[in-house]
Amino acid sequence: MTLLVVGSTAFDTIETPHGTSADCLGGSSTYFSLAARLFTKVRLVSVVGADFPAQHRQLLEERGIDLLGVEQKPGKTFRWHGRYSADMNSRETLDVQLNTFGDFRPKVPPAFRDSPFVFLANGSPATQHSVLQQMQGKPFCVADTMDLWIDRERDGLIELLRSIDGLIVNDSEVKQLTGKSNLIQAGRAALALGPKIVIVKKGEHGCFVFSNFFHYALPAYPTENVVDPTGAGDSFAGGFMGYLALCDSLTLWNMKRAVAYGTVLASLTVEGFGVDRLAAVDRPLVERRFHELQQFVAGA
Amino acid sequence: MTLLVVGSTAFDTIETPHGTSADCLGGSSTYFSLAARLFTKVRLVSVVGADFPAQHRQLLEERGIDLLGVEQKPGKTFRWHGRYSADMNSRETLDVQLNTFGDFRPKVPPAFRDSPFVFLANGSPATQHSVLQQMQGKPFCVADTMDLWIDRERDGLIELLRSIDGLIVNDSEVKQLTGKSNLIQAGRAALALGPKIVIVKKGEHGCFVFSNFFHYALPAYPTENVVDPTGAGDSFAGGFMGYLALCDSLTLWNMKRAVAYGTVLASLTVEGFGVDRLAAVDRPLVERRFHELQQFVAGA
Repeated sequence: MTLLVVGSTAFDTIETPHGTSADCLGGSSTYFSLAARLFTKVRLVSVVGADFPAQHRQLLEERGIDLLGVEQKPGKTFRWHGRYSADMNSRETLDVQLNTFGDFRPKVPPAFRDSPFVFLANGSPATQHSVLQQMQGKPFCVADTMDLWIDRERDGLIELLRSIDGLIVNDSEVKQLTGKSNLIQAGRAALALGPKIVIVKKGEHGCFVFSNFFHYALPAYPTENVVDPTGAGDSFAGGFMGYLALCDSLTLWNMKRAVAYGTVLASLTVEGFGVDRLAAVDRPLVERRFHELQQFVAGA
Repeated sequence: MTLLVVGSTAFDTIETPHGTSADCLGGSSTYFSLAARLFTKVRLVSVVGADFPAQHRQLLEERGIDLLGVEQKPGKTFRWHGRYSADMNSRETLDVQLNTFGDFRPKVPPAFRDSPFVFLANGSPATQHSVLQQMQGKPFCVADTMDLWIDRERDGLIELLRSIDGLIVNDSEVKQLTGKSNLIQAGRAALALGPKIVIVKKGEHGCFVFSNFFHYALPAYPTENVVDPTGAGDSFAGGFMGYLALCDSLTLWNMKRAVAYGTVLASLTVEGFGVDRLAAVDRPLVERRFHELQQFVAGA
């Protein structure tokens, strides 16, 4: 089934201990789309500036991503410049230029409004909510958020959480959202705010999944070759939602497999700068790594 | 089969956000023994001072722990005083008095020398090595260590690693030992130093197991009620070694189950101050939690 994603497209300049990559294709919706397209038809709603080159558009279109909802406006594309620490577990933002993304008011094309799966990448809760209001029917909707919105638009975020099916956040965000320092308590408390499923990402330590029917923990894929962590979280979400959209039912088992596919996509993304590795991945490689991950966590 | 442990016995004063417990029974070999006794016959080699009360001795003996190797010397028992941070992920040592433990030269009683399983709790590599030299035959031997010895007695530690079967360390220690910042690379590098199995503890994030035949990741049990993290690592080791000593063969499956039992014992220990909770645990409770842990990590 089709999967709609709404979020940023960007030019990223990334510095890691492995080198620097300047002005490479980035943005939450880009990573998400490139991961999800391995499983299902992806519809993208985003905004770019007049400087967005045809080659980037082509890279996405060649991988089956429908760009009908990508608005090109006068001015520049969103730019981000970040630098990772030596162990790549933290990063510093050196520069942000919102440019055309600064007043992004997502318009879902009529042809996209019947999408049964929706991912709201990181953005203001008001913007995320406006997407939901444009949809026909009741899609299965998962959202991301960040510390900025938890801090500054808490009421809007709480309202959004009542309208969505799933929330994907990292461990510090779920603690900030709920005021609980114990991660299990925080996960439960987030669940009580409305979503049917809360996925807490813990970076190299994997993730926890909370729902009213099951709790689940999955370690990260044991990658030895981390080149650039940018986009790991959005690739995780893309793998998760892409696989779910491929399934014909939202069973516990499909949810767990989707979490594992998300984990696999994140591990692939971090092996290259920007989207380099992710854009080159094919489904057989994903399946091989999915199998390796299963072996790695297989209990006794 | 019998399991020998050599390590410290202590009086601990512990401050956590949940309160303070003064002069409670502690020490690496105490936590280890109280965890391992749930599975097998434990033989303890340690040292205490003249101030070590009969009630502590009784607590251990009532749980089937053989104290023949616990030497009581003039002077005081080892004392440690520590304070945990608000999230209990770090701690500060406020006071250490080595006392009788300062010149601990473990003497393995003749009746203990045939133990087929040996755990060398944290201590100087020279002291740990001296235990191995007192054993008959070739026991299955696992050791713990710490940053102090990696820093100051590196050569002795490297030599010890060639003589033992398993190493249990935490994530920062294995990185320090091997000079690798990627945990998977660090685990592989530690394996290359000699042990057949390297278990890397990651606290609330669970553990990684490295061997030449399999790699394995297990999340921690999702405990919501962390009262005092003291002794979690030694309880993990006790559950791991205790279960292995109970098994009649060291298969991959038994190793994985042993890691899960270690995880369960650590989760129980942290639910009370000092050894309070651990000493009260019985095997049926351990089995229930083992089953819950299996459910929590069961893949799709």
